[in-house]
Amino acid sequence: MMTSVDFCYSIGSTYTYLTVMRLGEYARRKGIQFRWRPFDVRAIMLEQNNIPFSKKPVKSTYMWRDIERRAGLYDLPIRVPAPYPLENLAFANQVALLGMKEGWGEAYTVETYRIWFQDGLPAGSEPNLSESLQRIGQDPARIIEMASTPEIVAALAEETEAIKQAGVFGSPCFVVDGEVFWGDDRLDDAVQWSRNGSLRNVPS
Amino acid sequence: MMTSVDFCYSIGSTYTYLTVMRLGEYARRKGIQFRWRPFDVRAIMLEQNNIPFSKKPVKSTYMWRDIERRAGLYDLPIRVPAPYPLENLAFANQVALLGMKEGWGEAYTVETYRIWFQDGLPAGSEPNLSESLQRIGQDPARIIEMASTPEIVAALAEETEAIKQAGVFGSPCFVVDGEVFWGDDRLDDAVQWSRNGSLRNVPS
Repeated sequence: MMTSVDFCYSIGSTYTYLTVMRLGEYARRKGIQFRWRPFDVRAIMLEQNNIPFSKKPVKSTYMWRDIERRAGLYDLPIRVPAPYPLENLAFANQVALLGMKEGWGEAYTVETYRIWFQDGLPAGSEPNLSESLQRIGQDPARIIEMASTPEIVAALAEETEAIKQAGVFGSPCFVVDGEVFWGDDRLDDAVQWSRNGSLRNVPS
Repeated sequence: MMTSVDFCYSIGSTYTYLTVMRLGEYARRKGIQFRWRPFDVRAIMLEQNNIPFSKKPVKSTYMWRDIERRAGLYDLPIRVPAPYPLENLAFANQVALLGMKEGWGEAYTVETYRIWFQDGLPAGSEPNLSESLQRIGQDPARIIEMASTPEIVAALAEETEAIKQAGVFGSPCFVVDGEVFWGDDRLDDAVQWSRNGSLRNVPS
């Protein structure tokens, strides 16, 4: 039986662009079910003193070039560097979490990343926020009000804590059978693991 | 014409185990020439305030598990966690650099990593140092004396500076046509780039 794979991500992560934009098609092609789980990666990273790019210009320059090359591999348009870091990271993920409850979370995530990485307008802020919601047929005024409620704030904190307890410390992570796979470049590993409990091809 | 690929590495890096142990066979199979270039990654990382694992227990635990899973993929024996960080990182790379000048640097690197990651004895210190040199038919007393000279210390500093100027900030890195690829998991990307100037398969 095929295990489903948790896709734990934070809008605000740069490499997550590569995953978000290809995961729908990838899932269909591979016949894998992914559970999209937005969380607040910044809360975990600050708590764990894990600040990968701030004040590291060489590593940051590399990161953008690496993402740009890999976007080419996936045939994804990209404008680098995208605005980073996001001012409203938490709110972008509150909207995504609300969307997961209502059924439009995946579409919102894709559109807000598209506007962020292709048009250069940061996710979680206007005009990206309203534009991405309008593109997927949602009413920005209603969503922005609902995503600001204490219930959604608490729900994101709870989901973030659950994801942290699973061993996740960055975005994107894929979680399958208690194993964490960190990074867009570990997607194939996670899928292989879900099939074989190993990274190797097991003869059938 | 096939470009050669620079393999810039530091004995002391954990993920570099995965590359060192498979690169010889990989190079033969793919028909690629790699230039092994040991350097002092710690000097660059300290200068750039890039300390990936110290005081980050969750990320460290993940790192060892990720390396263990990938060692399984490559059919490499491994005992994790290996002793880390190395006390004598610079000296291990001074020995490797001397070995590159004398023609036994690649073999030494493989043996010292094997003893470090399979037997749990840190590279750059005894008994790993003498044992790895003996296994490749070198006289430990002669090598240890020569690798300690100001000439070799200066040569490693010079090589580290040149590698830093190329944009390298971690180990392993592959450098080809001015492009840096960081991580054992970018080896295929670097080779693809050396062939096509792109990560995509270009129809021939």
